[in-house]
Amino acid sequence: MTIKLYCFGESGNAYKAALPLELSGLDWEPVFVDFFHGETRTEAFRQINPMGEVPVMIDGDLTLTQSGVMQMHITEKTGRFGGRDADEVRQVLRWMFWDNHKLSSLAGPARFMANFLPEEKRPQEAVGWLQGRLNSAYKVLDAHLEGRDWIVGDGPTNADFCCCGYLYYPEPFGFDRAEWPNIDRWLDGLAALPGWKHPYDLMPGHPSDRA
Amino acid sequence: MTIKLYCFGESGNAYKAALPLELSGLDWEPVFVDFFHGETRTEAFRQINPMGEVPVMIDGDLTLTQSGVMQMHITEKTGRFGGRDADEVRQVLRWMFWDNHKLSSLAGPARFMANFLPEEKRPQEAVGWLQGRLNSAYKVLDAHLEGRDWIVGDGPTNADFCCCGYLYYPEPFGFDRAEWPNIDRWLDGLAALPGWKHPYDLMPGHPSDRA
Repeated sequence: MTIKLYCFGESGNAYKAALPLELSGLDWEPVFVDFFHGETRTEAFRQINPMGEVPVMIDGDLTLTQSGVMQMHITEKTGRFGGRDADEVRQVLRWMFWDNHKLSSLAGPARFMANFLPEEKRPQEAVGWLQGRLNSAYKVLDAHLEGRDWIVGDGPTNADFCCCGYLYYPEPFGFDRAEWPNIDRWLDGLAALPGWKHPYDLMPGHPSDRA
Repeated sequence: MTIKLYCFGESGNAYKAALPLELSGLDWEPVFVDFFHGETRTEAFRQINPMGEVPVMIDGDLTLTQSGVMQMHITEKTGRFGGRDADEVRQVLRWMFWDNHKLSSLAGPARFMANFLPEEKRPQEAVGWLQGRLNSAYKVLDAHLEGRDWIVGDGPTNADFCCCGYLYYPEPFGFDRAEWPNIDRWLDGLAALPGWKHPYDLMPGHPSDRA
């Protein structure tokens, strides 16, 4: 049965699920959600996910929301990406929660407001505040990656797929890879994995669709 | 062996670990972290947690950071609070990730800036932006709790301990229980559990210490 992932190209949170789906070789297909025309606010979408969020994964009878839960589901199905012993499992979860708390939850809105809101509607102080918090997060991640190729252990895990969610996008939101050499090297390493794709190549929808 | 939890009263993220420790009856003790005098920014603290965050849990040889990981560790030790079947386990994780992404990660800074920063240093627009996002989160949680006593299943789980993290505090940050009747009832239900304690009674440190 083909797994369906409700997603759109601009969603780093959807990318966090799409990337391990693709890398694991599971049979999956994207279902485009027209976020920028309000689809996630419709009653029909709320029936699928009352949280009103993308991504949503449908695997047979199962409907999953929250990318972290999807990553753990892919790990359960494939035995991959979850850590190889009890300590690695805990470390992977630790970085998944950290990302949700300190990185993607701030990078998503910062990028959205800085790029996809008309300038007169942009809350500049809020964007600046988010960028300040994000700098602290980049600092923690960059320091952790010093001398490491992967966030946990010696291969890619859900920790990597979480933390990279918003970091490949070209639209500027205050994240400059050149400032963070360890993050930069780690992103290159992830992108060199066989089957890796950029979010805009993995999921339908691109800013130019609205140009 | 007594579990140590590095924490302070004002930290809702620490409360998310302290509450299930207390309710599970595990042998634990708080270790006060003097956050408001910069202890989490010291080199000594970064040696314990390179993420520079409270809480930290030490259980024998194990040092855990991220409250979600601690909650799962308590579940592993006690068999409680994690959900009773595969579906409940996924639902509990779903709300834990949602809380980290959409609720506690915003409520913590909103409350901090609105109450513990001097007014002249307070980024009002950022606080307002956080409050707007938080209102959307309260709405999702309140709607979910309609007709339910607990977030998942028919007893308290880590989902409840996550989402309530910042919701018992008296300092105003834009959350008014009276506006959210289902959240209000659910918080009363949690507070009626045998052994429940308010964050300021469970952990050392209180705003009046700095008065």
